[in-house]
Amino acid sequence: MNDKPQLHTSLSPALLHLYDLSNSVVVIIDVFRATSTIASALHNGAKCIIPVDSVPKAIEIGRRIGAIAAGERDGQIAEGLQHGNSPLEYSPDFIAGKTLVLTTTNGTRLLQMALDKGAGTIISGSFPNLSAVCGFIVSQKKNVVLGCAGWKDRFNLEDTLFAGAVIHKVKEHFTIHCDSSLMAEHMYEQHKNDLAGFAPNMTHYHRLVKRFGLIEDIKYCLTPDVAPVLPLYQDGKLVAGPTF
Amino acid sequence: MNDKPQLHTSLSPALLHLYDLSNSVVVIIDVFRATSTIASALHNGAKCIIPVDSVPKAIEIGRRIGAIAAGERDGQIAEGLQHGNSPLEYSPDFIAGKTLVLTTTNGTRLLQMALDKGAGTIISGSFPNLSAVCGFIVSQKKNVVLGCAGWKDRFNLEDTLFAGAVIHKVKEHFTIHCDSSLMAEHMYEQHKNDLAGFAPNMTHYHRLVKRFGLIEDIKYCLTPDVAPVLPLYQDGKLVAGPTF
Repeated sequence: MNDKPQLHTSLSPALLHLYDLSNSVVVIIDVFRATSTIASALHNGAKCIIPVDSVPKAIEIGRRIGAIAAGERDGQIAEGLQHGNSPLEYSPDFIAGKTLVLTTTNGTRLLQMALDKGAGTIISGSFPNLSAVCGFIVSQKKNVVLGCAGWKDRFNLEDTLFAGAVIHKVKEHFTIHCDSSLMAEHMYEQHKNDLAGFAPNMTHYHRLVKRFGLIEDIKYCLTPDVAPVLPLYQDGKLVAGPTF
Repeated sequence: MNDKPQLHTSLSPALLHLYDLSNSVVVIIDVFRATSTIASALHNGAKCIIPVDSVPKAIEIGRRIGAIAAGERDGQIAEGLQHGNSPLEYSPDFIAGKTLVLTTTNGTRLLQMALDKGAGTIISGSFPNLSAVCGFIVSQKKNVVLGCAGWKDRFNLEDTLFAGAVIHKVKEHFTIHCDSSLMAEHMYEQHKNDLAGFAPNMTHYHRLVKRFGLIEDIKYCLTPDVAPVLPLYQDGKLVAGPTF
């Protein structure tokens, strides 16, 4: 009998309803850039990150609790906010000891969807905290859903490649009957030695680099384990969880 | 100025709403097995195929017009029908000159969705009619959406590989800014020399082969150009359209 827990990959928020999230660990994946920014800020000493689904809510909560309100819409700092969704903005001297309230186009929206659908445990992942994510999901011995945030419900390559990287590292611990996961791992295997070189093929790369010049962001977001922290959602906040 | 038409790939019926289908050619893709069966039946002389979305409707129309009513649910011949969704059932001596009324779990449902969303032109495709599909979409000089039927809204590999095969053959004629299309082509490139050898990785392969022993169906569905016909949807029917 095979009693390993199951692992599935949801390639878009519009597909999340196909998977049973209850009693599962759901990994929120938004490589460019929300979950890379979350890892960066927590690793650099942020007390916690409060993900919210609207700009007014970010501003209101930021004011009320004296936190840094930040976020983007369509790749740029959202109107009314002073800080955006770049992982490089959140250096230790800026963020250590502070609370960050963050709203983004895709990542924080997906987190809210996972909550609404009754996810058991929610964490966030991107290349900067790849090994922390893998260590945690193996330790829990529960079913896992890798949730790609995509771009406005469309499939994207960067989130898929991260799902593939996780699968590549943890697959012996899970039962995987899921074409999405198999595809993700194949894509990762094919490009793992030059993720940055593959990036110019991605539609989101063009949005971020050609329009906004964010090449350093892209490089950071694709670099494994530069922010070895586990963002764990608890009581409305992402806090640094256990690493293994 | 780049005035080539655009090509997108929709990886699941649940993502079809993200694409503008009006004035586009929509290719319905359900490799295992609806669109392979449609190609086989038309190529072997069926007068036309009437796709319907329910078993009672298939039975009722079949009786009324004296057609062969066929279909599957969950991979098996649907209850109440005598014929299923195997392309090998529809040899010339059985199907020539006849009308086939067909209902399937994924493919005919997707076709109905494309109709409801106002698709300009609808055709169906699978490996047995790969070149006919490519010739037609290039000839039309319109935007194209490759619509994968998937399995109950989940992503699947076989439909994605067919989308990749189409892209591989036609890409110079289209503008393609679409991560789904890029992924599909990469997956096809990686596996094109041994599609049948890759098939045992697919979840649907296990459903069809391990449960129902349909290995010959699988081989047929993955063989390019054995049924060189273009199923074109007109006035409620799929008929043999122009080939180029």
